[in-house]
Amino acid sequence: MSEHVWKLTLEYDGTDFSGWQAQPGVRTVQVEMERALGILLHRELRIAGAGRTDAGVHAEGQVASFLAHASDPPLEDLFVHTKLNAILPPDIVVRRAERMPSGFNARFTAIRRHYVYRMYRGKTATLRRAALSVRGPIDLDLMKEAAQRFLGTRDFASIGSPSEPGDSTVCRLETLDVSTLGSLVILQVSANRFLRKMVRTLVGVLLEVARGRRPPEWIDEVLAARNRGVAGAPLAARGLTLAGVDYPDPSP
Amino acid sequence: MSEHVWKLTLEYDGTDFSGWQAQPGVRTVQVEMERALGILLHRELRIAGAGRTDAGVHAEGQVASFLAHASDPPLEDLFVHTKLNAILPPDIVVRRAERMPSGFNARFTAIRRHYVYRMYRGKTATLRRAALSVRGPIDLDLMKEAAQRFLGTRDFASIGSPSEPGDSTVCRLETLDVSTLGSLVILQVSANRFLRKMVRTLVGVLLEVARGRRPPEWIDEVLAARNRGVAGAPLAARGLTLAGVDYPDPSP
Repeated sequence: MSEHVWKLTLEYDGTDFSGWQAQPGVRTVQVEMERALGILLHRELRIAGAGRTDAGVHAEGQVASFLAHASDPPLEDLFVHTKLNAILPPDIVVRRAERMPSGFNARFTAIRRHYVYRMYRGKTATLRRAALSVRGPIDLDLMKEAAQRFLGTRDFASIGSPSEPGDSTVCRLETLDVSTLGSLVILQVSANRFLRKMVRTLVGVLLEVARGRRPPEWIDEVLAARNRGVAGAPLAARGLTLAGVDYPDPSP
Repeated sequence: MSEHVWKLTLEYDGTDFSGWQAQPGVRTVQVEMERALGILLHRELRIAGAGRTDAGVHAEGQVASFLAHASDPPLEDLFVHTKLNAILPPDIVVRRAERMPSGFNARFTAIRRHYVYRMYRGKTATLRRAALSVRGPIDLDLMKEAAQRFLGTRDFASIGSPSEPGDSTVCRLETLDVSTLGSLVILQVSANRFLRKMVRTLVGVLLEVARGRRPPEWIDEVLAARNRGVAGAPLAARGLTLAGVDYPDPSP
């Protein structure tokens, strides 16, 4: 059997995790995944994740990958995602497991990431883990108008930090849609890449406009400043979900 | 000021409650509500609830009521639901507080209750507290056909138990709709009254049909048996939500 990579699509409730990335002494999604895969494969391994979600951030379509070894048991026969789900804690679910060519890496092959930020107008008990509760009036038309100003290939240095110091802060923001479902306000954001805390800071800026504290034109000022100090603090992690990750179509 | 009653509309996440009703030594919604109202009013009081939800059952529109005392601080001035929400734990939210005529009682004045039961096809991490995870194929057309057979004024003795032994087991089931939203299967059930465990047992019966284990005509047999042994066990509480309660329109 030729060398290949396993691609896993993951859902998790980020509430009780200190984020994606393995860190000593805390519970993270990467550590739980590597532990479960280690039990299934009887070996140690490291997985790559498409998005390094922060503590409290959820995922409906996080993507992870790891290199299959020739000596691994044949995972197809193991019905891999069902077996993994039987081992994993209830706040992580593997939705799909797919065999990919050996060049695939969940993080480096990704061409687009999709996030959703959910706000709830008023207090909520049943959705308190999945949405930020927002008090007072907010003007969704102003929010939509301001959102348009973020679109395109822009320097987002005011809105987030690069993973490694000195990395580029330019991102191509392709989608920034504002919609409602009952009392929920849902922002869908897609870009080729995101900086650290970028979605939560960006939605915080839009909320300032929606509350009438700043005009929509303020977005242009914030972007032009290229300074993390002007945009304000990121909103709470519990409203944020990594919804999905896109990869290039496989070569024909 | 004339004698009156306060009507409170409540939302709660039932996961960490031993149900609605006050019981010694356990955490219940009624006890938390009475404690918060006691702090606000500086007196002891008892509240009535429209639905005695079981342990783990959620509410988006539970209704509670209590008699105002002439000596109470004027609750309108206290902006009562905001103050209560500041005292209550995060898994209970008061959505509305309304002054009602003194004859109003959340439980005894109710004319109709609405429940929702949510099932998720496959495993889910983010919705694991709000939906029952269902494995394997289910046929929604069969489920809908079977659901029709429950409608109308029927003896539901096979499907639930009366709150007090000897009480009537006849209920008028007005709505039983099956719909889907992505991987969720949502059942909306409305009746003038419900027996204990009725919704969860009824949905369990429909699931047996949807899985092809029984034909839709089995519903008629189950109802005719008037025997709690034939319908099987109630489904898990986490899928069930008390969605709302109707009262007669106020006299003109």
